[in-house]
Amino acid sequence: MRVAITGAGGYLGRRIVAAAMADPRVTGLTLTDLAPPPAPADPRVRALAGDIRDPDLQAAVWDGADAVIHLAAILSGAAEADPATSRQVNLDATLDLMARAGGRRFVLASTIAVYGTPPARTDDATEPEPTLIYGMHKRMAEIALESLTRRGALDGLALRIPGVVARRDVGPGQTSGFMSAIFHAAREGRRIVLPVAPEGRAWLASVPVVAAGLLAGALLPPGQAGARRSFMLPALAPRFGDLAAALRVAFGGAGGDWQPEWRPDPAIVAAFGSYGAVETAEARRLGFPADADLPALIAAALDAGPG
Amino acid sequence: MRVAITGAGGYLGRRIVAAAMADPRVTGLTLTDLAPPPAPADPRVRALAGDIRDPDLQAAVWDGADAVIHLAAILSGAAEADPATSRQVNLDATLDLMARAGGRRFVLASTIAVYGTPPARTDDATEPEPTLIYGMHKRMAEIALESLTRRGALDGLALRIPGVVARRDVGPGQTSGFMSAIFHAAREGRRIVLPVAPEGRAWLASVPVVAAGLLAGALLPPGQAGARRSFMLPALAPRFGDLAAALRVAFGGAGGDWQPEWRPDPAIVAAFGSYGAVETAEARRLGFPADADLPALIAAALDAGPG
Repeated sequence: MRVAITGAGGYLGRRIVAAAMADPRVTGLTLTDLAPPPAPADPRVRALAGDIRDPDLQAAVWDGADAVIHLAAILSGAAEADPATSRQVNLDATLDLMARAGGRRFVLASTIAVYGTPPARTDDATEPEPTLIYGMHKRMAEIALESLTRRGALDGLALRIPGVVARRDVGPGQTSGFMSAIFHAAREGRRIVLPVAPEGRAWLASVPVVAAGLLAGALLPPGQAGARRSFMLPALAPRFGDLAAALRVAFGGAGGDWQPEWRPDPAIVAAFGSYGAVETAEARRLGFPADADLPALIAAALDAGPG
Repeated sequence: MRVAITGAGGYLGRRIVAAAMADPRVTGLTLTDLAPPPAPADPRVRALAGDIRDPDLQAAVWDGADAVIHLAAILSGAAEADPATSRQVNLDATLDLMARAGGRRFVLASTIAVYGTPPARTDDATEPEPTLIYGMHKRMAEIALESLTRRGALDGLALRIPGVVARRDVGPGQTSGFMSAIFHAAREGRRIVLPVAPEGRAWLASVPVVAAGLLAGALLPPGQAGARRSFMLPALAPRFGDLAAALRVAFGGAGGDWQPEWRPDPAIVAAFGSYGAVETAEARRLGFPADADLPALIAAALDAGPG
């Protein structure tokens, strides 16, 4: 099976490429990103540089592919700062790609930002109510993906990605970067100021688990996908205080004294620090990988993979 | 209050213009359509011809307006035949208009096509699952309207319009035209072949009721709109057989013998003849006008208004 990955040079993309190269079901890879994406020296791999808004690149993505994993996006903070570019990339280019699917599998990297401020408990039936530009455009793309799948024009899966930890380099567009920074700070025993409160929750998954989930979406046999095509990837929903305690134990032993400083920022608390419990039944039914508990999440979040 | 109406030359638009001219709260009207829309000779009225995809026309729509009623659209059959133009008009131009709102009231003429094939009972909490291109693009526009309203960038209402009866001239893009034709055929005692079954239901409202509902949406004081911004306008959900019986009584008396011929077409039954019961609580809470029963619907559907 030939898989194409847009945004393949990014943090998640590089992980998915590594997982795909190790999977015997993947017989070919097409990788695209703005800059030439790092590509294994392997005849099965084709790497292309270009803007996903370019129709020629869109055609090249689908050329020979059985499935596309669409990661290329303007992320949350950048979309908030530049809604017009978010619309071009996160909405228009995504619709353009879907229009070329001809019934093939299309995995959209969607986001928990579709929920806005989630209720006390979220499950697959919770109605998304985005407030961020990023979540709004992703939700609109989900609507198209679901409708086109019902029509048979596409075999779509919109996988809502929780906070992915632990990124090493957090760009200026990623307001949620503190969720990764806390892992590195704890391991290195460094001081960190967190813009949330200890009783707030985040929805988190480790980068290898998220990468494996997106690849599993591309490789899922057509008959196994259900009627629900937009759903959460598996996630843990720890309170930040509990996460800090687990990190202290993981890196300082029982007697460790590392502590973050809590300085809640109302805007960041509203966007990233006010989640409730979450149930990801559809992803679990499909057998998508999950972090078992906080110690497993911490270990996987800081493993030695690419990125 | 100055109201702008796009698609003002159409069947619904002309009705809304007439209702607005009779409403003392309306101090000015801007009317646009592809061809110059019929406009009362009144200094309060400005009529503009142009394509709603044109940024200059979009700016003119909002110029001085307190509220916009956005009717300009590619309707269901035409959207199905030309998805690219539906995307430009029903999605892109609608997003462009919303981006210029600056917090003002924007009433989107949405559609029951957002529901696809509705369940046995639909209410305001039913999750839309569009299958038609028209319903898909309108639902995407609703998502944007709801999100931008939560952000305060817009004060939006997406009013889902049921089958509007009884149109006189049914264009080639309107696959649902038989719902209007049955009213005229019954009044004139003419033969008609219906592409649905007598036990199927439609969701119907008379054109004066729908026009009054859209105008009420534009004039609704900001504080009265609730958190739910996309919802059904009031509708009746008669079985086609009961509608035919009511039409026979209305125009033939108790001894009338007019009957339609039933020749169900599976595609049309699926799209327009398989609705269930419908509850329009939010529209009723807001006091939007409604047809009281089938005799009232029939009388209003065939009144002597414009169009």
